[in-house]
Amino acid sequence: MQPRHVWVDGRVVPAAGPHLSVFDRGFQLGDGIFETLRARGGRVTELDLHVARLQVSANGLAIALPADIGERLAGGIRELLAVEGLAGADADASIRITVSRGSFRERGLLPVEEAVQPTVAIQAWPVMPPPPGHLERGLHLVSSSVRRDPLNPLATLKTTSRADYVYARLEARRAGAEDALFLTIDGLLSEATSANIFLVRRAADDVQELATPALDCAILPGTTRSWLLGWGERVGLRPVEGWLTPRDLAAADEAFLSSSVAGILPVTRLDGRAIGDGRPGPWTRRARDDREAYVRGEEPAAAPRSTR
Amino acid sequence: MQPRHVWVDGRVVPAAGPHLSVFDRGFQLGDGIFETLRARGGRVTELDLHVARLQVSANGLAIALPADIGERLAGGIRELLAVEGLAGADADASIRITVSRGSFRERGLLPVEEAVQPTVAIQAWPVMPPPPGHLERGLHLVSSSVRRDPLNPLATLKTTSRADYVYARLEARRAGAEDALFLTIDGLLSEATSANIFLVRRAADDVQELATPALDCAILPGTTRSWLLGWGERVGLRPVEGWLTPRDLAAADEAFLSSSVAGILPVTRLDGRAIGDGRPGPWTRRARDDREAYVRGEEPAAAPRSTR
Repeated sequence: MQPRHVWVDGRVVPAAGPHLSVFDRGFQLGDGIFETLRARGGRVTELDLHVARLQVSANGLAIALPADIGERLAGGIRELLAVEGLAGADADASIRITVSRGSFRERGLLPVEEAVQPTVAIQAWPVMPPPPGHLERGLHLVSSSVRRDPLNPLATLKTTSRADYVYARLEARRAGAEDALFLTIDGLLSEATSANIFLVRRAADDVQELATPALDCAILPGTTRSWLLGWGERVGLRPVEGWLTPRDLAAADEAFLSSSVAGILPVTRLDGRAIGDGRPGPWTRRARDDREAYVRGEEPAAAPRSTR
Repeated sequence: MQPRHVWVDGRVVPAAGPHLSVFDRGFQLGDGIFETLRARGGRVTELDLHVARLQVSANGLAIALPADIGERLAGGIRELLAVEGLAGADADASIRITVSRGSFRERGLLPVEEAVQPTVAIQAWPVMPPPPGHLERGLHLVSSSVRRDPLNPLATLKTTSRADYVYARLEARRAGAEDALFLTIDGLLSEATSANIFLVRRAADDVQELATPALDCAILPGTTRSWLLGWGERVGLRPVEGWLTPRDLAAADEAFLSSSVAGILPVTRLDGRAIGDGRPGPWTRRARDDREAYVRGEEPAAAPRSTR
């Protein structure tokens, strides 16, 4: 289903547009930032964390957000979900917030020094269930030929300069895979094009671990990733943030992706090779169920339990 | 002076806009490509080379350009320069062509597989003379903390995902410099944020060289860069495309930047250290003069001559 409305700079307007100037720095230079969120029954999951991350991205690019950006966005989302019919008790929506540096007619990379009003847009779509078979079969990934540099000061910012990610998704599609996995220039696991990656494995001390690339692996610190690290502790999986290799992934018992909108999705192949036994595992299913319950506003998983 | 008009998808429209959809992939994801050109007296310099490079960028991102894109752009530029008063015999204009993958309302990184009309926009500005002192003093550069990966398949494409470049220009401004210089992850010279870099030096065999980073140093193959390599041969400077280091730059007799719009500009400092004697050199002045003459449509420099 295609959105009929969009929220732009304070107003709900028809999705058909036009809404923006060709001079908008977002269009000209990918000079912007964004967030992707989920709302069940009109209730936005972890809005405060997303607004905080948006502010971090804005600071990184020296984009001046209005002081009341959090309230503006909360109000805009409420308004947009209502007119799109995505605020009802059963509604499930994905939301995108996009902020660009704004529009000015001077040419060049360097922003004018005068105060420029950023462009702020909100879009909403209904969340569709995963395509048939994704949960049962698990996603197949390919490693992207684009490598990520952990020392890039923008590596952890969610900018709209996403051509690398579009390219990686095209690589995945050409290979018949559902998503691409980025490696760092050192060959470590980084993240998928719009999700963090986790693996479940038994460590040398025979403890089951929930492992994910550390923050210095050129990843976006996902809100669902943070939640999962806490979840691991609660359910009896030792959370580990570290340096992981494709070999670690292949040798894992289970692997999954995590993102705000799609939630937890099993991963069963990288570059055609099976991960573990090549089938989605029980921890992945439980993580998905528990996260979906959390998103619905239900209590988090209770006491830790082991699969052993 | 700010443009009063812009050309969008076949029509000259007021620059005030709005022109574009929030759903445009250029705004959402930096999923687009661009070219920057110069026109003296209404005559576009090397339009065919820019259109060819646009096509290379489009192929790299799998953006389907219309078959007659060259004629469309030539017509659009003509039309826009005329209404902007930039087509007269004395006019000097910079032109930007921006093409995004287009607009569709589905969410996500992966482009829809159906044919989507790319968004094509043309902007024009009058070319201003370099700021006071730039030619006499030379530009000061800082090396950017953003490193470029020569193995990135997008490194040589001119995409609109330019946040890295905006960031580098902000780094330069904070340091009181005019531009930033990218190094590769291996520490080699790459390019400035919107210009190639050249240095003039005496080689071990006592021949004067015009050296610039090779194509495998994560550079955009500039049209002015190509012209300069030919110019070097004509004027008696041995053209060299190679792997150069910041040390090579510091030790050079002269250095300059080259770009379509700004032409040739002297560079005299990197990270606060003088290049050569810290003053613009005679080869730089001659390169600038000869390129400006070429852009005006005059004959290229005549027989080689040496400064020795």
